[in-house]
Amino acid sequence: MEKTREILVTNDDGYQARGIHVLTQMLRGYGNVTVVAPREPQSGKSVSLTLDKPMMFDVVEKTNAGDGLGSLRVYTLTGTPADCAKLGINIYLKEGRLPDLLVSGINHGSNASAASIYSGTLGAAVEGTLYGIPSVGLSINTHAEDPDFAGTLFYGGQIIDWVLADGIKRGVYLNVNIPAIPKDQIRGIRMARQGAGRWVKEFDHRVNLRGKHYFWMVGEFEDQEPVGAPDADHHLVDSGYVSIVPHRADTTDYEELERLRENWKLDR
Amino acid sequence: MEKTREILVTNDDGYQARGIHVLTQMLRGYGNVTVVAPREPQSGKSVSLTLDKPMMFDVVEKTNAGDGLGSLRVYTLTGTPADCAKLGINIYLKEGRLPDLLVSGINHGSNASAASIYSGTLGAAVEGTLYGIPSVGLSINTHAEDPDFAGTLFYGGQIIDWVLADGIKRGVYLNVNIPAIPKDQIRGIRMARQGAGRWVKEFDHRVNLRGKHYFWMVGEFEDQEPVGAPDADHHLVDSGYVSIVPHRADTTDYEELERLRENWKLDR
Repeated sequence: MEKTREILVTNDDGYQARGIHVLTQMLRGYGNVTVVAPREPQSGKSVSLTLDKPMMFDVVEKTNAGDGLGSLRVYTLTGTPADCAKLGINIYLKEGRLPDLLVSGINHGSNASAASIYSGTLGAAVEGTLYGIPSVGLSINTHAEDPDFAGTLFYGGQIIDWVLADGIKRGVYLNVNIPAIPKDQIRGIRMARQGAGRWVKEFDHRVNLRGKHYFWMVGEFEDQEPVGAPDADHHLVDSGYVSIVPHRADTTDYEELERLRENWKLDR
Repeated sequence: MEKTREILVTNDDGYQARGIHVLTQMLRGYGNVTVVAPREPQSGKSVSLTLDKPMMFDVVEKTNAGDGLGSLRVYTLTGTPADCAKLGINIYLKEGRLPDLLVSGINHGSNASAASIYSGTLGAAVEGTLYGIPSVGLSINTHAEDPDFAGTLFYGGQIIDWVLADGIKRGVYLNVNIPAIPKDQIRGIRMARQGAGRWVKEFDHRVNLRGKHYFWMVGEFEDQEPVGAPDADHHLVDSGYVSIVPHRADTTDYEELERLRENWKLDR
């Protein structure tokens, strides 16, 4: 059977990270894969774009389809994950098509709770969503460089099967977080919401030998969910479940829109 | 009457931009102002954080209260708007309090429609929201360096009055965009939603004299709203209205959460 699906892959740990290599190999089982990945790690870049400097581009690899695997082309860009997703989409558009799927990851580290706000992994997924491409961010809950990806590949594959079969609502992308435990200890998949939390004590203040003050960003995660709160993604992952949060690219709060219109007596 | 309100100000055009100076002077009419602004322009930085390098810090100005104006302290940071908002909040927390209001801007250029996704101005407002601080991003619809801010100050002041009097729903921040037209030509204030749109043709491809390929990000805005679509923020601003969009820091799509749970037969 000819592989006709086209899949765009990026990440925020950079193209040399283990997670994107493992993901790419898995996705070649689904179709032809185009990787446009940041040349350097880009953690915490959110949906940021590179507007004030040029982005260098390189062709790293081109491999034909064969042995039941789709073709592979790998490019790098000195940009953010959102830049990379945009470039990948533009490469496809120049070929007169769009990819059938965008997958960003496998991120080394959780993107649950407030991490979803800062995540470059998900920033790339936002870009796919703006083009109507079903887009998934995939993360494993450890910063280890070479973790056991068996559970991630198994459950990630299950979720990609569902997305390819059923699609996702337009304007929505999925944030999938997978516990970093052996595959047979994972308790299953749960739909989830963005759990409440934030980082506190974020600044390590130092003074250099010239008397200049500077800060390193650090911080401790403060969980703002009560114990036993249902559906919070970071709690589910901590409890051994794979969490799937559907996030919206349109972040309007429609209820508050109506409430303020009435409260402030504004015309339509 | 003693000024007791505490207001945190930042922006994404950098501390030397005209917009933040004009805003700061206006806000000193409301209370004591602390500015933590990026040292360099930071457009398109979304909610990105600086995790991989230190951020240099400087004290630019300290002015006491007087003449009916609150005190002013101005700091700069070689970071993003979200970094600056975080540092400002941490400065207040070290003093045992939180600011009563966070205002980010006045941004030179619209942050309506898809610009809200990439906006560093709003990235700072997200940070305030995570700390429960009423947070407003304020933008004027022109990139001119020294535009006529009369309408922005008048309508921005009106909206800040409302926010200080009534608050905003927790977890929500306001994206205010103001037409760059004379004050008396502005047609009024409208509540709005994030209008549908995106950038296309984003890459200018070049080759340097060493044969290396690189890209500059450019792009044309593609309006995805039909003519006459109600409540789209960029249409309202183009029509001469001030638009206010309430955005959510929790971007979960709760409807799609339930639909996928049912569709994919997932347990709670």
